[in-house]
Amino acid sequence: MRHLIRNIIVETPSKPGNLGLVTSAIGAAEGDIGDIKTIKSGPLSTVRDISVTCKDEVHLQQVVQNIETIGNGISIHAVTDDVLKAHEGGKIAMKSTLDVRSLGDLQRVYTPGVASVCLEIEKDPEQAKYFTSIGKSVAIVTDGTAILGLGNIGSVAGMPVMEGKAVLLDHFVGLSGIPILLDTSDPDEVVETIKHIYQGFGAILLEDIGSPHCFEIEERLKAELPIPVMHDDQHGTAVVTLAAVLNACKATGVDPTKAVVGQIGLGAAGLAIVRMLLAYGVKDVFGIDRQPDAMERLHKYGGKSKDSLEDMMAECDIIIATTGVEGLIKPEMVREGQIILALSNPNPEILPTEAIKAGAAFAADGRSVNNVVGFPGIFRGALDAEAKEITYPMLIAAAEAIVNHTRKGELIPTPLDPALHLVVSRAVEEAATLEKKNV
Amino acid sequence: MRHLIRNIIVETPSKPGNLGLVTSAIGAAEGDIGDIKTIKSGPLSTVRDISVTCKDEVHLQQVVQNIETIGNGISIHAVTDDVLKAHEGGKIAMKSTLDVRSLGDLQRVYTPGVASVCLEIEKDPEQAKYFTSIGKSVAIVTDGTAILGLGNIGSVAGMPVMEGKAVLLDHFVGLSGIPILLDTSDPDEVVETIKHIYQGFGAILLEDIGSPHCFEIEERLKAELPIPVMHDDQHGTAVVTLAAVLNACKATGVDPTKAVVGQIGLGAAGLAIVRMLLAYGVKDVFGIDRQPDAMERLHKYGGKSKDSLEDMMAECDIIIATTGVEGLIKPEMVREGQIILALSNPNPEILPTEAIKAGAAFAADGRSVNNVVGFPGIFRGALDAEAKEITYPMLIAAAEAIVNHTRKGELIPTPLDPALHLVVSRAVEEAATLEKKNV
Repeated sequence: MRHLIRNIIVETPSKPGNLGLVTSAIGAAEGDIGDIKTIKSGPLSTVRDISVTCKDEVHLQQVVQNIETIGNGISIHAVTDDVLKAHEGGKIAMKSTLDVRSLGDLQRVYTPGVASVCLEIEKDPEQAKYFTSIGKSVAIVTDGTAILGLGNIGSVAGMPVMEGKAVLLDHFVGLSGIPILLDTSDPDEVVETIKHIYQGFGAILLEDIGSPHCFEIEERLKAELPIPVMHDDQHGTAVVTLAAVLNACKATGVDPTKAVVGQIGLGAAGLAIVRMLLAYGVKDVFGIDRQPDAMERLHKYGGKSKDSLEDMMAECDIIIATTGVEGLIKPEMVREGQIILALSNPNPEILPTEAIKAGAAFAADGRSVNNVVGFPGIFRGALDAEAKEITYPMLIAAAEAIVNHTRKGELIPTPLDPALHLVVSRAVEEAATLEKKNV
Repeated sequence: MRHLIRNIIVETPSKPGNLGLVTSAIGAAEGDIGDIKTIKSGPLSTVRDISVTCKDEVHLQQVVQNIETIGNGISIHAVTDDVLKAHEGGKIAMKSTLDVRSLGDLQRVYTPGVASVCLEIEKDPEQAKYFTSIGKSVAIVTDGTAILGLGNIGSVAGMPVMEGKAVLLDHFVGLSGIPILLDTSDPDEVVETIKHIYQGFGAILLEDIGSPHCFEIEERLKAELPIPVMHDDQHGTAVVTLAAVLNACKATGVDPTKAVVGQIGLGAAGLAIVRMLLAYGVKDVFGIDRQPDAMERLHKYGGKSKDSLEDMMAECDIIIATTGVEGLIKPEMVREGQIILALSNPNPEILPTEAIKAGAAFAADGRSVNNVVGFPGIFRGALDAEAKEITYPMLIAAAEAIVNHTRKGELIPTPLDPALHLVVSRAVEEAATLEKKNV
């Protein structure tokens, strides 16, 4: 996984073309350039902070060396680690939404005033929605077994990711995300633990829990808790993938419900994508995986199987791959006019450029398919509707809202657009309200 | 319990003496006046918002009627419930401490940048202190069995209290308080649940958990977890009571270590007060309670017993009562020169005025002894010291810091003084650091 982000502080003589030399040098070493900020702009020299993503330290050294050998008076001042700096002290804090400036304030927010609020809720538990933060809070629960692509590094090492999710929930939809770090992966213990603490939360976001135990944990919690539960690595990913598929179909004039779809890799994400496509109304969804138990789950949920990867590639109109295996799809397997979403990060099953060259009508990799566009609005919508669960109609409504919000040329909208999260949450809320009426 | 706080909006002709008429009318009905804010001050009339605490709705009506019958052009505009208003939507929210304005920000705080922070922690788990919020967060855990003086109303109805504690932790010492609402009181289940989630927190504040199961729960968690655990209703109360006792001794010239102390009522608070006094070095601490198991616990911790309440009153220099029984101590039981802290809220075992009249050298009730002066600094100090537990030397250091910060005429300082929490946390941190060195 390519996750080393460093900020290189570079000074160049103030002459047109020098920044081009620097960025080309970084590019030649295959460094991935992010934001460039001008720190000092004088008549003689310019200092810039260039964010570069590398594979590892060795790769970073190559990038640094390429810049240092340009000459022309170009020099590196420092290489800083802004990522670590940003995470210092953690990224979240539980804050009071009220002032406490006088003893009167203290008596209102704490004793003795608070007692009347407690009694109000005791009399009518529904009042907890209005007089506590419960209805706006989401437990972000992990057991640390599948943190990003890093594997089973433990839930404490996964905390920066959980805090990241809480940051996004706060920024994009104003919900309180509360990390819960489990020390167990045993489904019985996980379910028991969450059942004992769920009352303090409006919803449960399961995060980075490994396969296959994630399936049992999510199913049991959904069945046993009266609040929304969603495993983002399954259904959040599936929502965003469905949106990407629909957008790709739009761009190529394919009718998604009539297309034959093949899902390569049936882990947490892959299986959820199959289920999502079937729920959307795609008739023929085929799946393939090396693990026999994954194939069993595929059949249980109504997916069909093909004998081989080659058969799948030959017979499907749309291919989605989530295997983690770089280069699994060879150019000679690509069928003329195929839609190919090779989603493994950072190295896809086939590069989009290669797929297009081999005849695909549309191709994308995982960088364009970002979970962040889905889960904030999904949870906000479910909580606004006071939904007891997150259902397929709600998830499909989220995917369609994402599609409607996509501009030409984008596969998925940018997550930084606040309007996006608003339309997703509205769509989810409406779908949930409609379902309630139909019950 | 007196917990009905209402705001009465009163208009009076702008003449000196009119506010006196209003406050006297409220006082005559035994309404307890809090803040008075002037809302409008014109040449002809003045409108004020008067906060009044009453026993119940009937009592409130008496207060209102008393004001309405003053005459003189004095009228009530409205009676509002500012307490409920203050609690609307809850009182806390998990906030991001970082900005997310660009894709660069997103890559730093979330993927892919976050992965390098996770790996840093996986390599060296101690780094979690610097790169996550864990070291600044306190789980506020309740099972809802002893919410304030309201009894077993359940943990959801207790949420406003837990949020209140989180508000105070944020305001006074900058810690994140995270309510955890348990659906079980069974010590095995509580301990199991907390053990499965403790890694996400720097410390555990047990709150409003009933007696006697609170004893087992706290002892087991202290023994089994490597982070500080404290039941505030026990030890937080005991710290503040010790500070009050020391201040009362100062005011009357009594040497606390040589005094004979009697504790009436051995519930969660009472037993903890006995233990705290013994830890402080008071030689003779007697206790009394109707429950045989409470007496057993008393003896286990080194407290002695007296045959009767009368014997206790006759032989002790200092009396502390936490029974919840109004008027338990009769004036004829009071010994000349005694120090009496009758702490039951809202109705003490003996009114301070009565105790003084009966010969006591010093008397106070529970209104002057507020937990809020203790727990924020205790937790902050323990976390700053990276202490693994909260010990008696740390708690005694907190009590002494409170005593040193008390001004003449106060029994306990006001919790609104930010310097107070600073000195308490410093004292606790120093005591913890000293203990570490001595180990």
